[in-house]
Amino acid sequence: MAGHGYQTGRLNLPFVGICTFGKYPYVEDWDAIEADVAVLGAPFDFGAQWRSGARMGPRAIREASTLFAFGHAGAYDHEDDVTYLEPDKVRIIDMGDADIVHTDTVKSHANIETGVRAALAAGALPVVLGGDHSVNIPCINAFSDQQPIHIVQIDAHLDFVDERHGVRYGHGNPMRRAAEKPWVTGLSQIGIRNVSSTARDGYEAAREMGSDIVSVRQARKMGTEALLARIPEGARYYLTIDIDGFDPSIAPGTGTPSHGGFLYYEILELIDGLTKRGEVVGIDLVEVAPDYDHTGTTAILAAQLLLNTIGRVMHQRELRKGAA
Amino acid sequence: MAGHGYQTGRLNLPFVGICTFGKYPYVEDWDAIEADVAVLGAPFDFGAQWRSGARMGPRAIREASTLFAFGHAGAYDHEDDVTYLEPDKVRIIDMGDADIVHTDTVKSHANIETGVRAALAAGALPVVLGGDHSVNIPCINAFSDQQPIHIVQIDAHLDFVDERHGVRYGHGNPMRRAAEKPWVTGLSQIGIRNVSSTARDGYEAAREMGSDIVSVRQARKMGTEALLARIPEGARYYLTIDIDGFDPSIAPGTGTPSHGGFLYYEILELIDGLTKRGEVVGIDLVEVAPDYDHTGTTAILAAQLLLNTIGRVMHQRELRKGAA
Amino acid sequence: MAGHGYQTGRLNLPFVGICTFGKYPYVEDWDAIEADVAVLGAPFDFGAQWRSGARMGPRAIREASTLFAFGHAGAYDHEDDVTYLEPDKVRIIDMGDADIVHTDTVKSHANIETGVRAALAAGALPVVLGGDHSVNIPCINAFSDQQPIHIVQIDAHLDFVDERHGVRYGHGNPMRRAAEKPWVTGLSQIGIRNVSSTARDGYEAAREMGSDIVSVRQARKMGTEALLARIPEGARYYLTIDIDGFDPSIAPGTGTPSHGGFLYYEILELIDGLTKRGEVVGIDLVEVAPDYDHTGTTAILAAQLLLNTIGRVMHQRELRKGAA
Amino acid sequence: MAGHGYQTGRLNLPFVGICTFGKYPYVEDWDAIEADVAVLGAPFDFGAQWRSGARMGPRAIREASTLFAFGHAGAYDHEDDVTYLEPDKVRIIDMGDADIVHTDTVKSHANIETGVRAALAAGALPVVLGGDHSVNIPCINAFSDQQPIHIVQIDAHLDFVDERHGVRYGHGNPMRRAAEKPWVTGLSQIGIRNVSSTARDGYEAAREMGSDIVSVRQARKMGTEALLARIPEGARYYLTIDIDGFDPSIAPGTGTPSHGGFLYYEILELIDGLTKRGEVVGIDLVEVAPDYDHTGTTAILAAQLLLNTIGRVMHQRELRKGAA
Amino acid sequence: MAGHGYQTGRLNLPFVGICTFGKYPYVEDWDAIEADVAVLGAPFDFGAQWRSGARMGPRAIREASTLFAFGHAGAYDHEDDVTYLEPDKVRIIDMGDADIVHTDTVKSHANIETGVRAALAAGALPVVLGGDHSVNIPCINAFSDQQPIHIVQIDAHLDFVDERHGVRYGHGNPMRRAAEKPWVTGLSQIGIRNVSSTARDGYEAAREMGSDIVSVRQARKMGTEALLARIPEGARYYLTIDIDGFDPSIAPGTGTPSHGGFLYYEILELIDGLTKRGEVVGIDLVEVAPDYDHTGTTAILAAQLLLNTIGRVMHQRELRKGAA
Amino acid sequence: MAGHGYQTGRLNLPFVGICTFGKYPYVEDWDAIEADVAVLGAPFDFGAQWRSGARMGPRAIREASTLFAFGHAGAYDHEDDVTYLEPDKVRIIDMGDADIVHTDTVKSHANIETGVRAALAAGALPVVLGGDHSVNIPCINAFSDQQPIHIVQIDAHLDFVDERHGVRYGHGNPMRRAAEKPWVTGLSQIGIRNVSSTARDGYEAAREMGSDIVSVRQARKMGTEALLARIPEGARYYLTIDIDGFDPSIAPGTGTPSHGGFLYYEILELIDGLTKRGEVVGIDLVEVAPDYDHTGTTAILAAQLLLNTIGRVMHQRELRKGAA
Repeated sequence: MAGHGYQTGRLNLPFVGICTFGKYPYVEDWDAIEADVAVLGAPFDFGAQWRSGARMGPRAIREASTLFAFGHAGAYDHEDDVTYLEPDKVRIIDMGDADIVHTDTVKSHANIETGVRAALAAGALPVVLGGDHSVNIPCINAFSDQQPIHIVQIDAHLDFVDERHGVRYGHGNPMRRAAEKPWVTGLSQIGIRNVSSTARDGYEAAREMGSDIVSVRQARKMGTEALLARIPEGARYYLTIDIDGFDPSIAPGTGTPSHGGFLYYEILELIDGLTKRGEVVGIDLVEVAPDYDHTGTTAILAAQLLLNTIGRVMHQRELRKGAA
Repeated sequence: MAGHGYQTGRLNLPFVGICTFGKYPYVEDWDAIEADVAVLGAPFDFGAQWRSGARMGPRAIREASTLFAFGHAGAYDHEDDVTYLEPDKVRIIDMGDADIVHTDTVKSHANIETGVRAALAAGALPVVLGGDHSVNIPCINAFSDQQPIHIVQIDAHLDFVDERHGVRYGHGNPMRRAAEKPWVTGLSQIGIRNVSSTARDGYEAAREMGSDIVSVRQARKMGTEALLARIPEGARYYLTIDIDGFDPSIAPGTGTPSHGGFLYYEILELIDGLTKRGEVVGIDLVEVAPDYDHTGTTAILAAQLLLNTIGRVMHQRELRKGAA
Repeated sequence: MAGHGYQTGRLNLPFVGICTFGKYPYVEDWDAIEADVAVLGAPFDFGAQWRSGARMGPRAIREASTLFAFGHAGAYDHEDDVTYLEPDKVRIIDMGDADIVHTDTVKSHANIETGVRAALAAGALPVVLGGDHSVNIPCINAFSDQQPIHIVQIDAHLDFVDERHGVRYGHGNPMRRAAEKPWVTGLSQIGIRNVSSTARDGYEAAREMGSDIVSVRQARKMGTEALLARIPEGARYYLTIDIDGFDPSIAPGTGTPSHGGFLYYEILELIDGLTKRGEVVGIDLVEVAPDYDHTGTTAILAAQLLLNTIGRVMHQRELRKGAA
Repeated sequence: MAGHGYQTGRLNLPFVGICTFGKYPYVEDWDAIEADVAVLGAPFDFGAQWRSGARMGPRAIREASTLFAFGHAGAYDHEDDVTYLEPDKVRIIDMGDADIVHTDTVKSHANIETGVRAALAAGALPVVLGGDHSVNIPCINAFSDQQPIHIVQIDAHLDFVDERHGVRYGHGNPMRRAAEKPWVTGLSQIGIRNVSSTARDGYEAAREMGSDIVSVRQARKMGTEALLARIPEGARYYLTIDIDGFDPSIAPGTGTPSHGGFLYYEILELIDGLTKRGEVVGIDLVEVAPDYDHTGTTAILAAQLLLNTIGRVMHQRELRKGAA
Repeated sequence: MAGHGYQTGRLNLPFVGICTFGKYPYVEDWDAIEADVAVLGAPFDFGAQWRSGARMGPRAIREASTLFAFGHAGAYDHEDDVTYLEPDKVRIIDMGDADIVHTDTVKSHANIETGVRAALAAGALPVVLGGDHSVNIPCINAFSDQQPIHIVQIDAHLDFVDERHGVRYGHGNPMRRAAEKPWVTGLSQIGIRNVSSTARDGYEAAREMGSDIVSVRQARKMGTEALLARIPEGARYYLTIDIDGFDPSIAPGTGTPSHGGFLYYEILELIDGLTKRGEVVGIDLVEVAPDYDHTGTTAILAAQLLLNTIGRVMHQRELRKGAA
Repeated sequence: MAGHGYQTGRLNLPFVGICTFGKYPYVEDWDAIEADVAVLGAPFDFGAQWRSGARMGPRAIREASTLFAFGHAGAYDHEDDVTYLEPDKVRIIDMGDADIVHTDTVKSHANIETGVRAALAAGALPVVLGGDHSVNIPCINAFSDQQPIHIVQIDAHLDFVDERHGVRYGHGNPMRRAAEKPWVTGLSQIGIRNVSSTARDGYEAAREMGSDIVSVRQARKMGTEALLARIPEGARYYLTIDIDGFDPSIAPGTGTPSHGGFLYYEILELIDGLTKRGEVVGIDLVEVAPDYDHTGTTAILAAQLLLNTIGRVMHQRELRKGAA
C-alpha cells in the first residue's frame, strides 16, 4: 500500500489506535457489509428503571476491547490450545451505532432493528452492544424472517413484565416481548435472583410461555453440563447477556446491580458448551453503564467475554464446516 | 411533643437526617400543600443528547442542600446583614418527585406538569429540580392559566430547536416551546455560547419570537446592572437555570458542559437584582448529573444557589408586603 | 385522597422519590412509632482507626435501598417461592437519624441509645444503620431491660480491645463492651481474619468471656449447617454486621477492608438459617463508608442484605405465629 | 447510497457513533490523505516527571470531541456570527495514532515524526493530540524542510531543560530542542509560572535563544492585544498547547497541574488574534491525562479549544484567499 | 557517603521517593529538631459538621508536595526573579504526625499542642497540616508562652460559635477560642461568605472581640493593598488557612465547600504582602479531605501554596537579617 | 529518649504517620542497611502496553500498608495461632525508591538493579514494589552472583515475548529474559489465562526453556498441594507477583486486567506452602496502578499479601534456624 512501509510494520499496542470494536474495520455503509460478524452499537438508555448511563456502553466496550488487540494473528488460548479469531478465517467488522433519537423510544428501537436486519441480510452474525436491555426487543424483531430461535438469557432479572403504566418496551419487558414472538421457540433464563421489576405473576407467565428459569445457586448446584442439558440441543440460539447477570464484584458498572451473580468462567464455560450444542445466530450484551465503574472492569468483562464468545462461535462453525 | 425531650433539642448537624430539600418537611399529599415554596423533583433524562444521568439530579441536590441546614432560625448573610429564610416567615415543603415513566416522554412530562399545577394551586412558588432541560416544557405548560410570564434563562445553550427527526420535547427544544406559548411574553437568554444543537436559524427564530440573547462575555462586558436593564421591569419572571450556564470548573457534573461559563456570584447578583426588579413566580434548575462529579461540587452549587435564590425571592416579597 | 387520582396510581420507579429506607414512611416523632420494624441511622464515625466516612453510611444505604423498591406488593423470591415484606403483614418505618454531636462520643452514643430504646419501647425490631462499629455499643446498651441476647457478629475484625490509651468506645472495642454486659449470654464471631487492632490477648479474653471465633475459611470448611449448629438454638439473637466481614470485592466502601471475606449468599444463607433457629431481636449494619466506592456496590450490598434479612425475620415470625 | 435511505437521514446525536476526532473520517493510509486538516494521535507518556497517563489523551479528546458534533453543517458561533467548519469548505480527517513502542522513546518519537511529515506532505494542517509534551519534539522535527516557524507555547512550564541525567527528550525538554532548530525563528512562551523542572539557568538560556517569557499574571495585566503585539506579525506559527497552561479548575486531568493558570476565553481570544496575525501551520495539544479527571472536563476543554481553533485558522485562511 | 556513588547523583523525579513534606527529612525525635521550619501533621477530623475525611489531609498534602520537588537547589520564581528555599539557607524538616486518639478530642488536641510546642521550643516555624479546623485550637494554645500574635484567617466560614450542645472544640469554634486568648491581639477573618454554623450573634461577638470580617467580594473590591492595610502592621502573624476559603473549583476536596471563594493568586499575593508587613510565626492549613477529589487538585493547591508561603516567609526573614 | 515522654507512648493508629512500608524505618544510605528485609520501590511504567500509572504503585502500597500497622508487637494470626513479624525477631526497613530516569529504560532498570544488589549485599531479603512487570528484569539481573534460583510467577500473562519491534525489556518480556539466565533453574508460571502479548510460539518457547505453565482453572482443579508438588522442592525461590494474577474483582487497579483470576486465600495458601517447601530469597510485586482504583482495594491487597508473605518467609526461616 504505502511507500514509506510504515503502516505494514506497526507494533499496534492496545493503547494505540481508533476505538472500533477489537480495532476491526468500521463499515459505515450497511449495504456493503462483507463479514462473518457485524458488531452494532445500540446506545439507548431511556428504558432503565434506576441508574441510566448505558448509552455510553458501546463506546466503553469498544475502548476496552482494544486491550485484547495485541496485533497478533488471532487469539491464542493455551488452555484450549486453539488460536481463535485467525484473520484469514474470521472477518469481523464494526457497523458503528444505530441512530438513537432522544425522547423517542419507538424510532430508536426501529433504527436498531434496521441495523440488525442489515447484518443478517449480509449473512453476518449480529453482535449488538447495549444500551439497556430494552434494545433486545428490536434485535429479536429483526429475526422475524429468519429460522426459529431459542433465547438463552444471562441476567439477574427475569425482564418479563407485560405492561405497567403503558410501558411495554422498557428494560423490564424484553423477555416477555420475545416470548410472544412466533419465531421464538423457548427461553432459558439463567442467573435470575432477588427482587426486581417482575412480580410473582411474571414468573408464572414466563413458565407458561415456555421459559426455563434458573438461579445462580441452582446453576452452580447442577453444574454446567446439567445446565446445558436443559437447553434444547441443536437449536439456533440467540444469546442475550445482561451484564448484571454477573456479580457486582466484576460488573459494578451497570444500572441495576444485584449481588450474588455469576463469575467469569461460569459463563464462559456455559457459552463454550452452548457453541458446541447448537448454532449461536445472534448476540447482544447490554446494560454496561461505564461511568459507574472508573476501574474499567465492567467494560473489560464485556469485551473479554464477547471476543471469547465470538471466537468460540466461529471456531465451532469452522469445525462443523470441516466435518460436513 | 415527646416526653424524653430529645426531639426538640437536636443539634441536627448537616450530615444527620433524611434528605429532603433543605431538610424541610415532605408533603406527599399534593392536595394538602400549605407553603410559600414547594420543591418538586423531576428526575427525567431521556431528553439528553450526550451524557445522561440527570435523573439522579433531584436526589443529589437534596443531599447537598443539607450542608446548608445548620439548624439555625434562618440563614444569616453578613454581606447583606439579612437573615433569610426565617422559619416563621417562610414555609418551604418538599413535594417529592413527579412520577416518571421510563421510555415514555409524554406521560413523564404530564406528571411533572401535574406537580407544578398542584404547587401553583396551593399558592406556593414552584421550584423544580431536574432532570434534563426538557422538564422545563411541562413546567411552562403548567402556567397556562396564570398571569403572563417572562422567562429568564441561564444556560450555555439556546435550546431553541423547533423539531429534528420528530423530536419536539428534548432538552434542545424547551425555549422554542416556551416562546410559542401565549402566556410567555418574552425571553432573556443569558450565558449562551459555543456550538450546540441549535443552528443559526434557531438564533434567528429566537430573536424573531421575542428573545434577547446574551453571551457570558457580553454579560460581563455590560455588567449586572445593564444586563438587568434589558429584562422587562416589573414582570412576573420564570427563572430556568441550566447548571451548564455555569463554568465547568464549578459545574462539571452535567450532561453537556461548555467551557467559558458563569461563576457563582455573577449569577447570584443577577438573581438578586431580578428579585428586586419584579416577582419571581417559578423556578427550575436542571441538568445536574451528579455521577459525573464525585466531588459533589455541582450539586452543592445547585443547592447553594437555590437556597439563596429562594431566600431573596421571599425576602423581597416580604419587603413588598411591608411597603404595601 | 386526591381528586386528580395521581398519587394512587404512581409507577414509582426506583430512581423516583425521597430516600427513606426502602421508601418506607419517615416517622419523626419517636413516641408515635407503630411498626414491626424501625430503621434508625447512626451516622457516627469518630471511632474509626483508618479511613473515616462511615457517617455517610445511613444516607447511602437509604439511597441504595430504593433500587429494590419497585412498587410491588412485597418482594417475591422465586428461589424460595415466597413473597416477603407484604405491606399488609409487615409495617416498616424510618426513624431518621440519631442526633450526632461532633467531637463528643459520649453524647452521640447516648443519642443512639435513645433511638434504639424508642424502637424497642414501640415493640419494633430495631435496625440500625452505621456509622462505624462503635455504634453497636449504645445499641447493646439499649437492651439492658430486655430479655437476654446472644450476639451474632459478621466481621473481619474481632473488635475485642479492652482499652488502649483510654479508648473504650472506639470501633475496636464493641464486642468487648458487649461481652461485659449481664444481658449478653454469648457471642458468635464469624469471619474474623488477618491482623487487626485486637492482639493475641484479646482473642484469649474473648474466648474466656464466652465467644466462639470462626474465620471465613473455617466457616466455609464446616458449611452453613455446622456453623449454625455452633450458635445456641432458640436464643434471642442480636445480629451485628460489619460490612467488612464481606470481601472487598463486593464491599470496598468501608474504612478498614480486609481481603478474603465472605460473599453474598454465604451470609444470606447463614442469616436465613438463623431466622429459623431463633428470634432475631435487633440488627445493626455498620462501616459502610460510601465515598470510597463510587460504584455504589457496597451500599447496594447493605441494602439488599438488610431487606432480605428483615423479610426473612418477619416471615419466620409470621410462621411462628401461625404455628402457635 | 443505500436503498433503505437510513444512512443519509441520521440524527447522529453526540453520544452516537465511532469516536474519531469530531466524528470526521478515519484515513488509515497516510499516503492517501486529502484534507485541509489532519489530526494525529501521539499516545506517548514515558517523558512525564510526575503522573503518567497522557497516553490515553488522544482517545479521551476524540471521545469528548463528539459532544460538539451535532450533525449540523458547521459550527455556528453567535458571538462572531460566523459558521465555522462548514463541510464544503473545510475537510478534516483523523489519521489515527502514531505507532508507539513501549520502553523506546527514540522509535516512538520517530513514528510521530513520520505522521506529521505525512500530513505536511499532503498539504494538510497537522494537529497532534498528545501524549506528554515531549511529543512536540518530533512534531518540530517534521518541519525541517518547511518554511521557518515561530513557536507559540501555552504552558505552565518553560520546558527548557537542556539535559539532566542524559535526558534530552523528556517533557521538560521540548522548547530547548525547538530553540536549537535552524527553522525555528523564535518562541513566545505564555503562561509560565511557579517552580518546575526548569531552573534559573534555563530561563536565562531561553531568553538568549530567542524566547519571550510571559506569565499568566503578566499576560492578564497587559491584555490580549499587547500580548499579541509581542508575537512577530505575519509569521508562520506553530502552536503548542500544554493543557496545564490552563488552570487546574478546568484542566485537572493532566500530569503536572499548576495553580493560577489561564481560563478558557483568555486563550481562545489569544488564538483568535493569532489566526488573524499570521498563518498557523501546525498545532499540538498535549498532557491530557484523562484518568485523573472523571468529570471529563479536561478532555472537553481540549476538544472544544481545538475545534474552535481549527475553525478560526481555516476561516482566516478562507478570508485571506478571498482577499487575494 | 556511599561507595557506589549512586545516592549523590540521583535525578530524584517528583514521582520517586518517600512522601515526607517536600521530600524534606523526617525527624522522629521531637527533642532533636534543628530546623527553620517544622511541618507537623494533625490528622484529626471528629470536629467536622458535614463530610469527614480531613484525617487523610496530611498524607495527601505530603504526596502532592513531591510534585514541586524537582531536585533543584531551591525554587526559582521567574516573576519575582528569586530562588526561594535554597537548601543552604532554609532548613525544613517533617515531624510526622501528632498522635491522634480515636473518639477522644481532648487527648488528640493535647498531642497536637505538644507537637507545636516542640517546634517552637526548637526555634522552628511550625507549619501544621490538618485535619479539620478544630486543630487550630491546640495550635493557638501552644503559643501561650510566646509573644502576642495576630491571627490572619483565610476561610469561607467565621468559625466563631461559642458553644452548642456542649461543643466548644469542633471545627465551628476555633476562632472564638482564639479570640478568648490573652496572647491573641486580634483577628483578620478573610473570605467569609454564605450561611454556616455561625449565626448572626456570632458575627456580632466576633466584631466585639476584635475581629475584622471581610468577604471575598469585599476583598476583591478593595484590592490586596487595602486589604493588607487593615491588618496591623509589624505584628507577629499566625496564619490559619482553611482550604475552603478557596473556591470549590480549585478546592473541591474539603468537608464543607462554599461557592464563590478565592482563586490562587489572590491569596498568594495577600500572603506575599503579609510576609513583608510583619513576621509570620505560625501556620496551619486545614480541611483538605483528599478522597473527595480524585484529581488531586485540592492537595496540590495546599502543597503549592504552603511551599510558596514558606519560601516567602523565609526570604523576608533573610532580607530583614541582611537589613539589620 | 525524650523528656516529654510522648514519643514512647504513641497509640500510632493506622491513619497516623509517614507512609513508609509498614511504617518501618526509612534507610536512605544503602550502604548502611542492617535488616532482614529491605523494601525497595521501583516506580517505572514505560514498559506497559495498555494503561500506565504503575509508577504510583510503590506510594500506594506504602500508604495501604499502614492499615496493617496497629502498633502491636507483631501481627497475630488467630487461624495459625502465630504472631508474625515480631519486632525483636524481624528487622524490616524501607530503602525508598530506585532512581527512575524518564524516557530512559536502560538507566532506570540499572538503578533498580543497584538497589536490589544493595539489599542482597546487606544480607536482606529484597522486596521490590513495582512499577510494571519489566522491573523484574533488573531484579533477576541482581541475582547474577547469588546461588541459583527458581522463579515462581503469579500472573495472568506469560510475559514470554522475546522481541517485537526491538523491545526486549517491556512488561511482556521479563520471564523470557529470566529464562535466559544461567542462574535461573526453572520457572513455575501460575495463573496464566486468556489472550495477551505472548503468542503461541511464546508458550512453546517457555516450555522448552524450563517453564511449567498452569492456568487458574488448572490450579483450582489440582488443588494447592498438587500445585506445590510441581515446584522443585528445597529450591531457592524468587517470587514475582503480578497483581493481575488476581481477579479484577479484588485487583482492578492495574494496567492490563484479565478476568477469571485468583482470589486472596488461593495465593496466600500457595505462598504459605512455598515458604515451607524452600527458601524465598527475593520478591517483587508489580503492576499496581492505583489511580485506576479509587477504593484502594488493589493497593490494600498488595500490602496485605506482602506483609503476610514476609511474615511467613521469616517465620519459616526462624523455624529452620531453631531446627538446625
